[in-house]
Amino acid sequence: METNQTIRLIARPSGGPITEDLFQIEEQPRPVIEDGQFLVRQTSLSLDPAMFGWMSPDTDSYIPPVQLGDIMRSNGVGEVIESRHPDFSVGDKVQGMFGWQTLIATDGQGITKLDPSLSDEMALSVFSLPGLTATQGFYHVLKPEAGQTLVVSGAAGSVGSIVGQLGKAEGLHVVGAAGSDEKCDWLVNELGFDGAINYKEEQLEENLAALTPNGIDLYFENTGGAIQTPVFNRMNAHGRIAVCGLIADYSLETPRPGPSWLNVIKKRLTIQGFTMPDHLHNAPALLAQLAPHVKAGKIQYRAHVLEGLPSAISGLNLFMTGSNKGKLMVRL
Amino acid sequence: METNQTIRLIARPSGGPITEDLFQIEEQPRPVIEDGQFLVRQTSLSLDPAMFGWMSPDTDSYIPPVQLGDIMRSNGVGEVIESRHPDFSVGDKVQGMFGWQTLIATDGQGITKLDPSLSDEMALSVFSLPGLTATQGFYHVLKPEAGQTLVVSGAAGSVGSIVGQLGKAEGLHVVGAAGSDEKCDWLVNELGFDGAINYKEEQLEENLAALTPNGIDLYFENTGGAIQTPVFNRMNAHGRIAVCGLIADYSLETPRPGPSWLNVIKKRLTIQGFTMPDHLHNAPALLAQLAPHVKAGKIQYRAHVLEGLPSAISGLNLFMTGSNKGKLMVRL
Repeated sequence: METNQTIRLIARPSGGPITEDLFQIEEQPRPVIEDGQFLVRQTSLSLDPAMFGWMSPDTDSYIPPVQLGDIMRSNGVGEVIESRHPDFSVGDKVQGMFGWQTLIATDGQGITKLDPSLSDEMALSVFSLPGLTATQGFYHVLKPEAGQTLVVSGAAGSVGSIVGQLGKAEGLHVVGAAGSDEKCDWLVNELGFDGAINYKEEQLEENLAALTPNGIDLYFENTGGAIQTPVFNRMNAHGRIAVCGLIADYSLETPRPGPSWLNVIKKRLTIQGFTMPDHLHNAPALLAQLAPHVKAGKIQYRAHVLEGLPSAISGLNLFMTGSNKGKLMVRL
Repeated sequence: METNQTIRLIARPSGGPITEDLFQIEEQPRPVIEDGQFLVRQTSLSLDPAMFGWMSPDTDSYIPPVQLGDIMRSNGVGEVIESRHPDFSVGDKVQGMFGWQTLIATDGQGITKLDPSLSDEMALSVFSLPGLTATQGFYHVLKPEAGQTLVVSGAAGSVGSIVGQLGKAEGLHVVGAAGSDEKCDWLVNELGFDGAINYKEEQLEENLAALTPNGIDLYFENTGGAIQTPVFNRMNAHGRIAVCGLIADYSLETPRPGPSWLNVIKKRLTIQGFTMPDHLHNAPALLAQLAPHVKAGKIQYRAHVLEGLPSAISGLNLFMTGSNKGKLMVRL
């Protein structure tokens, strides 16, 4: 009979690459469901930069850490393969925080049904945390106006690529920062960004200045690192910065300092951090803002699909080097 | 006949103390007024930290710098001593950007009449930039709620002392940071702050923790320097920071870096810079918010009065060392 493959977190990362010895891979018996439960076979799970926070012991974080010995937390999609629940039937396509495992017995709490015509890739790349986060940050933190200049870091990533495309859909001048020339080509030639900059290049400041001749009004910050200071220094008066991710800092023992607050006064900037868990109650409204742009063909995505549950472990390291090409996910 | 004493800026400060050789003191003839003008004898002028920005060559600043050779910019109060203007009469008490001079011929633009019962000290300490700035920052940037914990840096200064008293009037737990034990005593024993901390002390973090047992929800930042990081690290989730001044950085050639943005995400903080020139159109509404608290006796102030126009020059250095005791002004 089909077993449940699980991966548990057994040690916390201490900076540097994620290694297999932090995890324990097991085969468990197929879960038995009770009345009011159903069984999901997960088909794809999402890898997200937020996982670095979930693995850390820091209790200050906005979501409690994964306890040592627990199955690693993740969002995924799957199919109902057995049901004793009145609202879920065999064959339903569902999404939930299924974690790093293949079979899940659940009472349905926190699980939503998906349109069965939606591919796993589209579900996890757009109609999920990336699309929600991008929509919340773009509309409700940056509060954009047509004609403004928007810079997005991590622009080829799952969130950043949607933020930039929303910017284009709303009439902004959009420049993306990404970690390779190939990604920059994709942003400009496929997604229609007005410009893209490889943050690993020299002459970052000169290149950024050439691409943002009117300065920068809005900055969607996904990465931190080398791009942060040059962008910050080109912010216009009354500029707004949404701080969504700092992947370049998550693996450092001592995070880099931020920019001096002198420009916060001089330019009357607003810097606002946000995370989706605060806004999940607003998910239906956010999806309603996003869906028309998807239907209009304005939101393209790129999924980077790894194969097999154990590939989730080494897959996390792709975030640190910026080697993922689009939304990272694991097909089970 | 009475002459007009003037002080012109002739060189720009390069960090370090403000010295007399940056200025030229002159005696000019008494100005002659034309039809539609009136003559003001300035009686008191305000010294403000913003003057460091006005003297710097930095064109990024929110107000254009004072041009070399021009009379130094300042706000002041005075009396109309001669008038050929239909709306201003001899004896009127007036306020305006009169600059570092004793006699001003003007057509009245930007000049407001004051209640003649208002002392120069009250006019410049409360019903002027300090009160407007405190009211804007407290109500419209921090957006406080009763029961929250507010920390104010530069709390014994003209703006900070009003912010803290507004906090007490609105039911907040208020802790001030100041540069001497004497100032801290004044904050707690005279103004009714819940606590005060001398930022020159050791064990800043421990003392701050003891005074803010529930963490910090709101931070009104007037100074930068040693207090910034300990306060930042104690911010609660969804905390708000109003950045109004960074006097500890104005005289540095290289400003200090700010805190890492990691906590901006983790705590979903909002950091917002503001300056009063953006909000002067709103001055009547701000004064209407402030006045009832003044009338109710909830807003005390302390004026630090220097004597004679030339004392304005060395007076600026009191800001850098934090040696001013209350609102700095010069009586002419």
